[in-house]
Amino acid sequence: MHNFEYFNNVKFIFGKDTVTKVGELVAAQGKKVLLHYGGGSIKKSGLYDTIMKSLKESSLEVVELGGVVSNPRLSKVYEGIEVCKAEKIDFILAVGGGSVIDSAKAIAAGVHYDGDVWDLYIGEGNVESTVPLGTILTIPAAGSEVSPNTIITKEEGQLKRGFSHISLRPVFSILNPELTFTLPEYQTTCGMVDMLAHTFERYFTTVRFVEVTDRMSEGLMKSIINIAPKLIADPNNYELRAEIMWAGTIAHNGLLGTGRIEDWASHMIEHEVSGIYDIAHGAGLSIVFPAWMKYVYKNDMPRFAQWANRVFDIEINTFNLEETILKGINALERFYQSINMPIRLTDASIDIERIEEMADKATNNGAGTVGSFVELTRDDIVNIYKLAE
Amino acid sequence: MHNFEYFNNVKFIFGKDTVTKVGELVAAQGKKVLLHYGGGSIKKSGLYDTIMKSLKESSLEVVELGGVVSNPRLSKVYEGIEVCKAEKIDFILAVGGGSVIDSAKAIAAGVHYDGDVWDLYIGEGNVESTVPLGTILTIPAAGSEVSPNTIITKEEGQLKRGFSHISLRPVFSILNPELTFTLPEYQTTCGMVDMLAHTFERYFTTVRFVEVTDRMSEGLMKSIINIAPKLIADPNNYELRAEIMWAGTIAHNGLLGTGRIEDWASHMIEHEVSGIYDIAHGAGLSIVFPAWMKYVYKNDMPRFAQWANRVFDIEINTFNLEETILKGINALERFYQSINMPIRLTDASIDIERIEEMADKATNNGAGTVGSFVELTRDDIVNIYKLAE
Repeated sequence: MHNFEYFNNVKFIFGKDTVTKVGELVAAQGKKVLLHYGGGSIKKSGLYDTIMKSLKESSLEVVELGGVVSNPRLSKVYEGIEVCKAEKIDFILAVGGGSVIDSAKAIAAGVHYDGDVWDLYIGEGNVESTVPLGTILTIPAAGSEVSPNTIITKEEGQLKRGFSHISLRPVFSILNPELTFTLPEYQTTCGMVDMLAHTFERYFTTVRFVEVTDRMSEGLMKSIINIAPKLIADPNNYELRAEIMWAGTIAHNGLLGTGRIEDWASHMIEHEVSGIYDIAHGAGLSIVFPAWMKYVYKNDMPRFAQWANRVFDIEINTFNLEETILKGINALERFYQSINMPIRLTDASIDIERIEEMADKATNNGAGTVGSFVELTRDDIVNIYKLAE
Repeated sequence: MHNFEYFNNVKFIFGKDTVTKVGELVAAQGKKVLLHYGGGSIKKSGLYDTIMKSLKESSLEVVELGGVVSNPRLSKVYEGIEVCKAEKIDFILAVGGGSVIDSAKAIAAGVHYDGDVWDLYIGEGNVESTVPLGTILTIPAAGSEVSPNTIITKEEGQLKRGFSHISLRPVFSILNPELTFTLPEYQTTCGMVDMLAHTFERYFTTVRFVEVTDRMSEGLMKSIINIAPKLIADPNNYELRAEIMWAGTIAHNGLLGTGRIEDWASHMIEHEVSGIYDIAHGAGLSIVFPAWMKYVYKNDMPRFAQWANRVFDIEINTFNLEETILKGINALERFYQSINMPIRLTDASIDIERIEEMADKATNNGAGTVGSFVELTRDDIVNIYKLAE
């Protein structure tokens, strides 16, 4: 196990009838709140009214900024920063999924930053202080409700980049599984693919002996895979929604990465796809991950065979681990297909014309590598895209 | 899943060469520190010198209070409170295992409490403010390095009682697995029994559908059971020590209890044993838990059969779950025996003369019940002690 530090001070309020606590939670942090959200769905569902009522009851001033889209845009972040400065906002409440929360974090980081907030996303600036934020999660997927991470897309050049700062962990996150009943099936499944991917990125590590987090990660993966088809068949089942919602947070709370070297190559390879083609991140991941696995499994066959066995119940052929592994990857692909997710670029109507461009962007024109399980060069990434063709 | 709130803000510094960071960590919290520890082992091992050097380098004033024993005593707590008041201590550093940390928490709670600190342990007082504390863990077992709990024994009447307050979570905990190399085998195994028990207390729940935390808990249990004999055979193996040390924290960080109703009957039944006979808590637990299981399994056979199957690889006999369950409990007993832990009161040279007295004490003379998986009366507890005879 590697040395590590672990600190995660997000307060979670989980369950039914929890949104009404938001006013009290915000009031403990500030007086004037930016309510940040996406489209009109929170107004249609009545969630907006519940939130506003609670905020008003706690005598909070509210300024609104909606309109966040998936693969959230830098232009909206700039708008949010200006609003926060003009209105002297002292707390940001993000209501939505990962896109809204990531956008809120970008705004939180940019308000006190003396320069272009995009600097932070390209590693050219430092954050001194941020505006505190809280979340009401409506899409279990990205884990942004627990993480210190934010990913933003700059429209010019279709660049999708991430940034992380410890002060960007939400002060609180309210998770009410009932809010996810009305999620379209596609968003539900994309979310499950994403949380599974967060577990993979930590599971496939070069650190040899990490049995406790291995087995706990396998338990999480198995749960998501087991619950997914049941949830699709029964989307208003509170118990299933609750398991998946909490699974999304656990997958990204950092605990399952402790003592390990994490990878994140597949996420970076995917970001170039969704950055250009604007497909859902989850859909990009179900395409990229099997291809990445096929490309790298030979670097640690015992680990991949263990995964195939413990997560997909593939019997281990001790004479031929490769057979076991390929059955495992195949089982993953069949799982993705069973929940109607794409597993090839062509399934998502993406032609491969821009593969070279995407590999260039992922590696700073070939100057860098991505990942740590295997350090992938530009050419490796081209090969992975081809495997996903 | 039940509604819950989860907040755990302990900072963990895990790994080799981490003790030297203690001065800096304490200096961020206070100026004058009470160094609280047990016997002389930290002086023999050189740990004391490393700590003192780091504290002095950060210009901290240090007052020492050693002499904490296992099943930590109220008299030492009183002594600590007086020292803290007289010396105007503003931070407590606990160096040791659960006993030392629990003693430190009792002191931390008592310094600003206007009355007898024992009031808190019998539910007759409220804590307004506590002295912040940090830990350097030397015995992985109790999970006190992450929990808000403290258990103290009042010598008069041999009463062992617990108390919990959110402000008693340590600000930081330093976990260096190397510090556990010199632990006697018995303390190592008692620790593993304890962390396993913490997982059981949360696993056996009346909440029906909690698949994610079920599977993650099973992974943790399986890891501890798998690693235990290897660690006994190879006590200086860093990797094994590291897994067990972190397992102890995870078993008690609260995550595996989220959304569940926890039980804790076995702990309460055990406390009466170790309160009177002063045996190690872990040794009491390996005696009490199998007996508790035998007494209650009929209340949820599917859950016990799942546990036997997933943790001990017992094939499920779908025609006879009871057979599967009894094989599972038997496997647990064989596991305890394989690591030289007692599984019957007689193994620990405890006669059963005082069974009735212990059952009385656990239930406030029969007025109360313990546990939630099954609410056990005084007579139930007598029966469980008899099963453990």
